[in-house]
Amino acid sequence: MSSMWGENIQISLFGESHGTALGVVIEGLPPGFEIDLEAVAAHMRRRAPGQYPWSTPRREPDVPEILSGFFNGRTCGTPLAAIIRNTNTQSGDYANLVARPRPGHADLTGRVRYGGANDPRGSGHFSGRATAPMAFAGAICLQMLKARGIRIGARALEIAGVRDIEIDPADAAFDTAAKEFPTVDDACGERMKAAIHAAYERQDSVGGIVEAVAVGLPAGIGGPFFDRLSCRLGTMALALPACKGVEFGSGFGAARATGLENNDAMRYDGDGRIVRPTNHAGGIEGGISNGMPVVMRCVFKPPSSIGAPQATVNLETGREETLEVKGRHDPCIVPRAVPVVESAMALVLLDRLLDGATPSAS
Amino acid sequence: MSSMWGENIQISLFGESHGTALGVVIEGLPPGFEIDLEAVAAHMRRRAPGQYPWSTPRREPDVPEILSGFFNGRTCGTPLAAIIRNTNTQSGDYANLVARPRPGHADLTGRVRYGGANDPRGSGHFSGRATAPMAFAGAICLQMLKARGIRIGARALEIAGVRDIEIDPADAAFDTAAKEFPTVDDACGERMKAAIHAAYERQDSVGGIVEAVAVGLPAGIGGPFFDRLSCRLGTMALALPACKGVEFGSGFGAARATGLENNDAMRYDGDGRIVRPTNHAGGIEGGISNGMPVVMRCVFKPPSSIGAPQATVNLETGREETLEVKGRHDPCIVPRAVPVVESAMALVLLDRLLDGATPSAS
Amino acid sequence: MSSMWGENIQISLFGESHGTALGVVIEGLPPGFEIDLEAVAAHMRRRAPGQYPWSTPRREPDVPEILSGFFNGRTCGTPLAAIIRNTNTQSGDYANLVARPRPGHADLTGRVRYGGANDPRGSGHFSGRATAPMAFAGAICLQMLKARGIRIGARALEIAGVRDIEIDPADAAFDTAAKEFPTVDDACGERMKAAIHAAYERQDSVGGIVEAVAVGLPAGIGGPFFDRLSCRLGTMALALPACKGVEFGSGFGAARATGLENNDAMRYDGDGRIVRPTNHAGGIEGGISNGMPVVMRCVFKPPSSIGAPQATVNLETGREETLEVKGRHDPCIVPRAVPVVESAMALVLLDRLLDGATPSAS
Amino acid sequence: MSSMWGENIQISLFGESHGTALGVVIEGLPPGFEIDLEAVAAHMRRRAPGQYPWSTPRREPDVPEILSGFFNGRTCGTPLAAIIRNTNTQSGDYANLVARPRPGHADLTGRVRYGGANDPRGSGHFSGRATAPMAFAGAICLQMLKARGIRIGARALEIAGVRDIEIDPADAAFDTAAKEFPTVDDACGERMKAAIHAAYERQDSVGGIVEAVAVGLPAGIGGPFFDRLSCRLGTMALALPACKGVEFGSGFGAARATGLENNDAMRYDGDGRIVRPTNHAGGIEGGISNGMPVVMRCVFKPPSSIGAPQATVNLETGREETLEVKGRHDPCIVPRAVPVVESAMALVLLDRLLDGATPSAS
Repeated sequence: MSSMWGENIQISLFGESHGTALGVVIEGLPPGFEIDLEAVAAHMRRRAPGQYPWSTPRREPDVPEILSGFFNGRTCGTPLAAIIRNTNTQSGDYANLVARPRPGHADLTGRVRYGGANDPRGSGHFSGRATAPMAFAGAICLQMLKARGIRIGARALEIAGVRDIEIDPADAAFDTAAKEFPTVDDACGERMKAAIHAAYERQDSVGGIVEAVAVGLPAGIGGPFFDRLSCRLGTMALALPACKGVEFGSGFGAARATGLENNDAMRYDGDGRIVRPTNHAGGIEGGISNGMPVVMRCVFKPPSSIGAPQATVNLETGREETLEVKGRHDPCIVPRAVPVVESAMALVLLDRLLDGATPSAS
Repeated sequence: MSSMWGENIQISLFGESHGTALGVVIEGLPPGFEIDLEAVAAHMRRRAPGQYPWSTPRREPDVPEILSGFFNGRTCGTPLAAIIRNTNTQSGDYANLVARPRPGHADLTGRVRYGGANDPRGSGHFSGRATAPMAFAGAICLQMLKARGIRIGARALEIAGVRDIEIDPADAAFDTAAKEFPTVDDACGERMKAAIHAAYERQDSVGGIVEAVAVGLPAGIGGPFFDRLSCRLGTMALALPACKGVEFGSGFGAARATGLENNDAMRYDGDGRIVRPTNHAGGIEGGISNGMPVVMRCVFKPPSSIGAPQATVNLETGREETLEVKGRHDPCIVPRAVPVVESAMALVLLDRLLDGATPSAS
Repeated sequence: MSSMWGENIQISLFGESHGTALGVVIEGLPPGFEIDLEAVAAHMRRRAPGQYPWSTPRREPDVPEILSGFFNGRTCGTPLAAIIRNTNTQSGDYANLVARPRPGHADLTGRVRYGGANDPRGSGHFSGRATAPMAFAGAICLQMLKARGIRIGARALEIAGVRDIEIDPADAAFDTAAKEFPTVDDACGERMKAAIHAAYERQDSVGGIVEAVAVGLPAGIGGPFFDRLSCRLGTMALALPACKGVEFGSGFGAARATGLENNDAMRYDGDGRIVRPTNHAGGIEGGISNGMPVVMRCVFKPPSSIGAPQATVNLETGREETLEVKGRHDPCIVPRAVPVVESAMALVLLDRLLDGATPSAS
Repeated sequence: MSSMWGENIQISLFGESHGTALGVVIEGLPPGFEIDLEAVAAHMRRRAPGQYPWSTPRREPDVPEILSGFFNGRTCGTPLAAIIRNTNTQSGDYANLVARPRPGHADLTGRVRYGGANDPRGSGHFSGRATAPMAFAGAICLQMLKARGIRIGARALEIAGVRDIEIDPADAAFDTAAKEFPTVDDACGERMKAAIHAAYERQDSVGGIVEAVAVGLPAGIGGPFFDRLSCRLGTMALALPACKGVEFGSGFGAARATGLENNDAMRYDGDGRIVRPTNHAGGIEGGISNGMPVVMRCVFKPPSSIGAPQATVNLETGREETLEVKGRHDPCIVPRAVPVVESAMALVLLDRLLDGATPSAS
């Protein structure tokens, strides 16, 4: 199954970038939950194109139409389907990419996979635009988690070598939802923007890291092997286009730590609750939440579509060519990926919380 | 589902460290394949305890008994089940860990998850020993992949800050299966061993990174979202105990690269085949294999069980205590994790190759 | 998962009877297949309401809009989503059913299941109208099976005690798709229509049996336990609203047969192929197709919505009441269920044929 | 997936009739449940061979060995695996069946499916013996259901045309667990036994129907489409060897009923609870439990292995032959199927009750 996922919450994603519509079916949502549609729209705007000066000029309203599973402002408990119509498509830009695949893209590999039958316009089903329905689904899950006392936030931790400040993940300042640029420190954000703009001027692109945190998750969520919270969260993160890696807590840094450094000592606070002065585990021990903030970082590669000349092949002529991708493309997807990673985390955590095997929070 | 996985090849893992037996059921194996049992045993010995001087002294023969799905030396096509009996258990070592959970372990979180009913001896189902059945399953898959021209190898890339040499993943020297210590460069291996031994002397532990490569995989394997090869491989890697992160190709390094640097240019070789001088994508573009070596790296944290004093809590007395974990524990699991990561990669790739939607190799 | 199904072909069904739209996402369709949209429409018309004089007067055009996965007249291989908008709804008819649940319906049980939050209008997600998207999906699968030499047909075998004639399932006359009433023998059909009309006049309803056949399926499709072809087909049949039983081959009749009577002897025909003079197994031995026609029968209960007075309870007043369901409802769903059962069979068989474990036809 | 099943409770079945062992892995069992091992053994004895004079003389102790997930007499919550070793095998009986397939068996179809690699001895993985592990798993689920106030019973409703008496499914007499022959009316049981014995004397076999009932299931369990309780239960029933049909409530009888006859009127009892004087729905309305007894009937065909001469083909010589199956085989599997059907029902109902979407019982 390539576009269906989940056990307790299931999603089915569909849609091509330049097709009629994209959408998602969400199954398993608890019945009777009142959805704040304006909050959904606000969350989706953070992912929408056209909000930055360098951003792809395709301006889609990205307004979802709910088709089912929603009655009198509340979830029915039955499959909730929503679609987002594509209205602002300029397919002419992409026609000759079929013959001359862009390095780093699914142009060549998708052609092999689907025998050339997949919709190539705007990268089709491989487009980053395919994450819009996931942002919709995540927006609902975020509301349901909030009602359970669980808060998820994400930020651009690093772009083009510029790194945001260190901060306690439990700090409310971690929430970047209301910010113009999703960093904790605005000065760092300005430097990231400058780096992105410089890449844009060079017809190049830059990569970066999104850091996401869940605060308020009770201990006891997860399990061995494929139930490891890191496994479940990582699966969803690695399903996102352009994500090339994921880590939890100290992550790859743990390779250079010792056990004594990396273990999170346990203490009692004044009320007899177990606390940890450190959180190298990223809130996950033995694959199971321990009550500390769950910390995940995802790396997104620099977008492959760049205007600068690149070497590629012409599948029709059998000759090597130099490709300069036309049109304006996002020189960095990290800022727009921030709400998508929040959505991904929300889908996984709600799925786990609704599991019948989940113990009551201690 | 915590211990079942797969679509075309399915596995069901079971067993506790000090229970009667561990095992695995493997479904979907093609019928009529002749299994080389000696090669299976050799693969499992690479994971077995007791092969290094610092290693846990628990010496298990780890000999699997095949119960079903195997007839006249060949797979039947029906579920193949195998068990590994536990014979060398000293459960006394672990009795008091129930009251005083080890930081970094599933002692506390597992207790919450299972309400205290899970088997605590030797970390129970959370033990690294639970990877022995996965190594068995992977050993069979490795043979089936080899018969299809696909070769998988892994190595200890980094331990305690010591890093193995860079090498072309397609290089045959990458295969560490026959080595005493799984590095490409033996001098690096000696330094890693020294670092592990030093940690052992300090009653501490060290972490590291395993790098795994698949060579010979045809282009066109994978797909969008949850079919992304990086998603499928990452799920399996993150299901392994102690794995805190996974990356593909340039991975987290892509955060500091530009698109021009990170894209792998396409060329034609003399025979009209598309080749790439670089492999930043790690063999995966748009989630789909591109014919280049598939490169995955997993970080394993330093083992949590250390003899050095650590702060923990006593759940019975409600008091803080200093814990010194008794018994000998592996001060580094990276060398033994190498064949497990190979196994994990083999399970995923065979699962994908057997998918009905997989195109014929081009 | 209540509305998602499948391994190689997956569907995700959604939609309420009086909501905005119903629809289906179909994943796993082989890429590059040219869909005959007129044939899809013709298949869906057989299920559509309003074609019989007694039928519910709700006349829906039931025209599906394809949203994704379809490009230049061919399948892309990516998720194909289609929706059917609801345009002809009269929700007023159903308002008071919330308080006074109809016996036999999901009115009461759905209320318990969803805590009263599900959309009650027109039976919501429980409506027979929810099978329209399944008919759409089945229509595509039927075309793909036909291209593989597999033909599926169904008929109204029995309605209100009137039974169609016995016929060799391999007989081309079994195909009722072009008929005004889906029986092999038109005289039987006339008697069934008369019986339905009589029930309609009495404000009552009648049940019946649909018989479906697949001809041309190669031997070797299926497997043990949950791969039994009867298990797979039966699951899909029992997912249909109002279906209360399913049987294969001699079915419940096998309870009164002996082994000697029920076994299908094997012979060689002149060309060395194995043939069976009888087909008590319904084409399935040991859960696996044997090359004979696959024969399935599903019973559909008489529709619960009837105008005749029935005893029910008033959940608001706590008093017993007599209910007379207003509006016109189908007094028999068997004729319209015929193409739905064909669709169900087509989905299952295509799912199985696309399985990587399926052997080449012998 | 052929031998794995489930969402909240998962099972993985394995084993061939004459292999080393059969077994099952059960995942998702709630932790901390004390299993009554003697009750498990008693349940399995009802399925075991050798208890009737005509029965196959293979006398297996069928004693399961629990390998994991069970500690101090209680479930751990981790995968519980158990095996049953094969000790009393006479494989010589079956050797020549490979060339001369038995009509009605998987001999021919399994050969096509597995390319001849499956274990043919004793019908291998297709043997009725493969239900022993399912009986083990069901025995545990039955205990867990009992602790929740849900009681499951089954009986031989009909064998060789002899039918047990009608009885209210809620009647305690429905429980046949302690009986020598599983009918409610002993006289009917004697006539069934006589019919079986007569078939045995004729070297023939007879079929029959098992009726199973669950009492005490709360309303609200189930849902639309693939969550229909009839769909879930029917899937498990149709996964059983030799089962050729399944029905619920009035089942195929509903084909000849009218809506007025078939609807179950609702009344209030003295305590304000909704009751139904009839139960044509078999406890399931709209796919969801309504609080009445859940009634399922499964038909089992007469066993295919009979001593009487049958026509078959010789795959080696390409000639038609007359086959007389040697050895003693069960002339009727219905009595032994009774506890297996109870097990199947218990697995499904526990899986549903543990679902996070299940509402609290009303």
